[in-house]
Amino acid sequence: MNYKYLSNSPCEQAVKDFISALKSVGTTYKTEVTPTRQSNGLVAASAQYARRCSPHYCACAMDGIALKSSITSGASESSPVTIKAHDYVFVDTGDPLPQGCDCVVMIEDVVEHTRGAVRLYAAATPWSNVRQVGEDICMGDMIIPSFTVITPSIVGALLAAGVYELETVKKPTAAIIPTGDEIINEVSKPKPGEIPEFNSAIFSAMLDEWGVFSKIYPTVPDKPKLLLSAVSKAARECDAVIVIAGSSAGRDDYTSSVLEKIGKLVVHGVAIKPGKPVVLGHIGSVPFFGIPGYPVSGIIVMEEIVRHVMRLLTKRRAAPDFQVKSLLTRKITSSLKYKEFIRCGAASVDKKLVAVPMRRGAGIVSGFAKAGGIITVSQNSEGIGAGSEVMMKLLKNYDEIKNSVCVTGSHDPLIDEVSDILMRSDNPMGVVSSHVGSMGAVMALRNGEAHMGGIHLLDTETGEYNTSYAKRYFPDGGVALIRGVVRRQGLIVARGNPLDLNEIKDIARTDISYINRQKGSGTRILLDYLLDENGMNPCDVRGYEREEYTHTAVAAAISSGNADAGLGIFAASKIYSLDFIPLWNESYDFLVLSSALEDKRVKRFIKALQSENLRKRLDSLGGYLCEQPGEIVFL
Amino acid sequence: MNYKYLSNSPCEQAVKDFISALKSVGTTYKTEVTPTRQSNGLVAASAQYARRCSPHYCACAMDGIALKSSITSGASESSPVTIKAHDYVFVDTGDPLPQGCDCVVMIEDVVEHTRGAVRLYAAATPWSNVRQVGEDICMGDMIIPSFTVITPSIVGALLAAGVYELETVKKPTAAIIPTGDEIINEVSKPKPGEIPEFNSAIFSAMLDEWGVFSKIYPTVPDKPKLLLSAVSKAARECDAVIVIAGSSAGRDDYTSSVLEKIGKLVVHGVAIKPGKPVVLGHIGSVPFFGIPGYPVSGIIVMEEIVRHVMRLLTKRRAAPDFQVKSLLTRKITSSLKYKEFIRCGAASVDKKLVAVPMRRGAGIVSGFAKAGGIITVSQNSEGIGAGSEVMMKLLKNYDEIKNSVCVTGSHDPLIDEVSDILMRSDNPMGVVSSHVGSMGAVMALRNGEAHMGGIHLLDTETGEYNTSYAKRYFPDGGVALIRGVVRRQGLIVARGNPLDLNEIKDIARTDISYINRQKGSGTRILLDYLLDENGMNPCDVRGYEREEYTHTAVAAAISSGNADAGLGIFAASKIYSLDFIPLWNESYDFLVLSSALEDKRVKRFIKALQSENLRKRLDSLGGYLCEQPGEIVFL
Repeated sequence: MNYKYLSNSPCEQAVKDFISALKSVGTTYKTEVTPTRQSNGLVAASAQYARRCSPHYCACAMDGIALKSSITSGASESSPVTIKAHDYVFVDTGDPLPQGCDCVVMIEDVVEHTRGAVRLYAAATPWSNVRQVGEDICMGDMIIPSFTVITPSIVGALLAAGVYELETVKKPTAAIIPTGDEIINEVSKPKPGEIPEFNSAIFSAMLDEWGVFSKIYPTVPDKPKLLLSAVSKAARECDAVIVIAGSSAGRDDYTSSVLEKIGKLVVHGVAIKPGKPVVLGHIGSVPFFGIPGYPVSGIIVMEEIVRHVMRLLTKRRAAPDFQVKSLLTRKITSSLKYKEFIRCGAASVDKKLVAVPMRRGAGIVSGFAKAGGIITVSQNSEGIGAGSEVMMKLLKNYDEIKNSVCVTGSHDPLIDEVSDILMRSDNPMGVVSSHVGSMGAVMALRNGEAHMGGIHLLDTETGEYNTSYAKRYFPDGGVALIRGVVRRQGLIVARGNPLDLNEIKDIARTDISYINRQKGSGTRILLDYLLDENGMNPCDVRGYEREEYTHTAVAAAISSGNADAGLGIFAASKIYSLDFIPLWNESYDFLVLSSALEDKRVKRFIKALQSENLRKRLDSLGGYLCEQPGEIVFL
Repeated sequence: MNYKYLSNSPCEQAVKDFISALKSVGTTYKTEVTPTRQSNGLVAASAQYARRCSPHYCACAMDGIALKSSITSGASESSPVTIKAHDYVFVDTGDPLPQGCDCVVMIEDVVEHTRGAVRLYAAATPWSNVRQVGEDICMGDMIIPSFTVITPSIVGALLAAGVYELETVKKPTAAIIPTGDEIINEVSKPKPGEIPEFNSAIFSAMLDEWGVFSKIYPTVPDKPKLLLSAVSKAARECDAVIVIAGSSAGRDDYTSSVLEKIGKLVVHGVAIKPGKPVVLGHIGSVPFFGIPGYPVSGIIVMEEIVRHVMRLLTKRRAAPDFQVKSLLTRKITSSLKYKEFIRCGAASVDKKLVAVPMRRGAGIVSGFAKAGGIITVSQNSEGIGAGSEVMMKLLKNYDEIKNSVCVTGSHDPLIDEVSDILMRSDNPMGVVSSHVGSMGAVMALRNGEAHMGGIHLLDTETGEYNTSYAKRYFPDGGVALIRGVVRRQGLIVARGNPLDLNEIKDIARTDISYINRQKGSGTRILLDYLLDENGMNPCDVRGYEREEYTHTAVAAAISSGNADAGLGIFAASKIYSLDFIPLWNESYDFLVLSSALEDKRVKRFIKALQSENLRKRLDSLGGYLCEQPGEIVFL
């Protein structure tokens, strides 16, 4: 409980201070000699000058005849000039220009005549079709200055100029040391409390993209002595040391104290979120980074801090962030204490880029994998309002984002299956999806923030699905429904149904812990309807307030024993081999703006909905009825 | 002379036809299983689903105490709740949530009390600071669809979800077979007519960037039988075959006929320039490419054709071309027969991107290495006028282009040395230079197409350098001169001066072959002045009309015996160990728009001009006098 507070240095300042501290202790790059043929993508450590001319001799630039241009003087269509056999020489491209000749006439323009003579119908100019010595590169010319990143054409220019090897910046090697008593190696069935190590794989892949090798050391338990010896070894063997986790100031956080024993601590704590507990320092001239153990925090720290510092060792220039103006779909609140990084889904709707903020949890690495971009909220801002124009740093190829259909709303695995079908097509196309529930879909379409939205909205008055909601929220029309599937909703319960649940009334039992879906989701609306129909009250249901965002999350909670029952679709229960008590059949359809029906991405989505391929995939998921998927219902 | 004409298929059509021909013979990708940790940058061959939840247990998300939230009910600043020792458990981040607990209170909010009890000043909400099972990823959820390129965070998401290996698209291997009797291996002193092979290195580097391995085969001489056997072997061993050179229809061009013997020819000749003579076909289902031997033609064909076809084997989506609006500085003429690719220098001047067309020779690989972008002139266009707005595909990082100073005009090696000094500085900055002669510099500055221009313009009336030209062409002012160097101009002649040249008059001797500089260059103006001074006439000088663009090109021609004398600077003669007959001292300065003097890139260039480092470098080049380099002379 003797919690030690971290400093809260602004990120740019921390990086600047750290880099100057490193420079003052002599942290710098190493060089090595590399064969030019193997140098593509490397950084030249010095300026490179041509060692010979290219071409190194006067060369014929065409297949044809070489001759002295003066003897063709006056040749024209009407009065060709005849060149005798001993006055010209047949040459091929690349041949040295024969002695006494000063031009080449290309073979297409040479007309055969008698006794080996040829005729020309146009005069040749001196030095035409001849590559002069040094036409490409002259000996002594600088081909590239220092610290140029070698490209394929630079490889060619260097080789053409006789530079067969060159001094390059040696790729540095960073040590990666995972730590933590709970961290284990990869296993297929980890026990509760065991966390299979994977941060090292993420960081190693990032380093690779920045031109840095990595060496992953065995995981060190939370024992200061062991950490000290692992760090000392790594600092001797590598050009930089990265320690994962233990970088905060808690009971088992030893990174900063270990560093202080054998090196110098420069910064502890940076004003970013996620990613605050960072340790920056050095052991001799070897940079040292203590990175938080949550993967998202770690990725942000790698990107915002480690990447910049590594440039001291790689001599690569900053790769530009690709920032694009986008429309923020939801309000973001942020603390004045931190610069905050918010991952967003990115989609191109109505020729504008929309940024859909994603869940912020520091442990949600899948969010990074799905995110199309990142929005930064500066430290002196309390947040950004919905509908604001914000700069989003793209994490995906902009063309691919533009070529993706944006499907929001209630989530169903069929969206992922359609996405896979579209990616496997001849002209791959992406699906950007976000899970905001059925009512979220209605709102997103009203704001023009998505192409289509998955909905399963029950009109509790009429028992009708989707159409009445569409009419109510779009009283002036302008929307249509694309038929999806009919799917079975029911209670997901533990395997063998040990608590003997049989109908909706049973979830009010006091021995039952229920797990609910979030407000605005179609499943939540269905639950409320079923409770009402059965004269039940939400207060009667223990766990009514415990919300999950997907069917599989509900099933996962039940599967792990953290809840006893939840309303969800059959497919989710099947994945977890759970029991399922069917209660209801519902229509899961896609709401779409009529104007978007002409969008070729939407058309392709509809075509995939209609495909036999999807029908087969849904059959194997189970619990679906496909009537007329892809049929358009105008309202 | 039985020249066989090639077809002239439009490029896009040729690629389309070729791809459908390949599909019809079953050309496709292969797959293999890869450990997820090694999969960054590879392409997933199938959709990947989570094999377990992450986290797989209810985990504490903070260091603190775990307890049942209901017992904290009512706690507030004024009335804290005391929790007895047996009602809570100390937990660390990542610990499983203890049985019976449903929340974690973070350690900072826990206040020690007596006998192991603690006090809380705020009520805890159920499930706060707890990571629910599947918070990140739920078992069964699709993590990525097929053909997704794996990123570091996808590696993390896969590992978190227990996907330790996955099916990836196997990187294909392309065979590269160089051909030609004149082609030799790398040697330091090739003889005339020998061309050391380097195209294979360029193409191999390009393939590597597209995710394709390459295997370079020994060079095959122009013998159809040998080529046939090399191609057959390569088609058996690799996934694609690339034959370099011999792809046209000349005397020694066997590529297409060899292909027709063992495979199928699909396209011979594509309407692009450079790069027309292309052979496209297949041997069984193995794609076959015959690529022209000129490096620039080859690079264009690789980029415009091979890259697209390789995607059949790599399943990578088209990388977007980064196209930017730019201002064309010079007129481009183009043939209606071809789609033409023009390499350009790219610079950011006055917040606009300027495109400076470069020399077009198909052999000029150094041009590709220097080019900042490429402009495409479509087949149905005769060209583009100067000052037009054109889309330029960038070959360099846009940020780096924006961070470069643009220096045009007469070229002097000192510009390259300054460029190296700037690249070696703490904050590397590029110099984009183009060689258009002194008068070209004046014109470029008048059009706002460069920041500064190297000039050495002799006023033949007054003997004064540069100032009078600046005043004449900028009568309203607005320009300044930045002092460069005084440099020695003289006759460059063969080593030992075997022809005994001693003064300018000697270049009129009938046994002398002179080599001149291009019109508009300062050196050309000086020559004309010297001729005039000495009562000589250009007609008296054999070779007056033979133009080169740089001092080193003049020296190279003399060094190779292709010319006897040329006017140039001492440094050029020194590089080639030639004799030098000094004739004149001239001022080489930089003309700059007064408005650009405040530009930080120009300021940095000036600072480098003033540096001791540059002075040392010029000393070692020789022939320079540094008086006040970097001094600004206002006019």
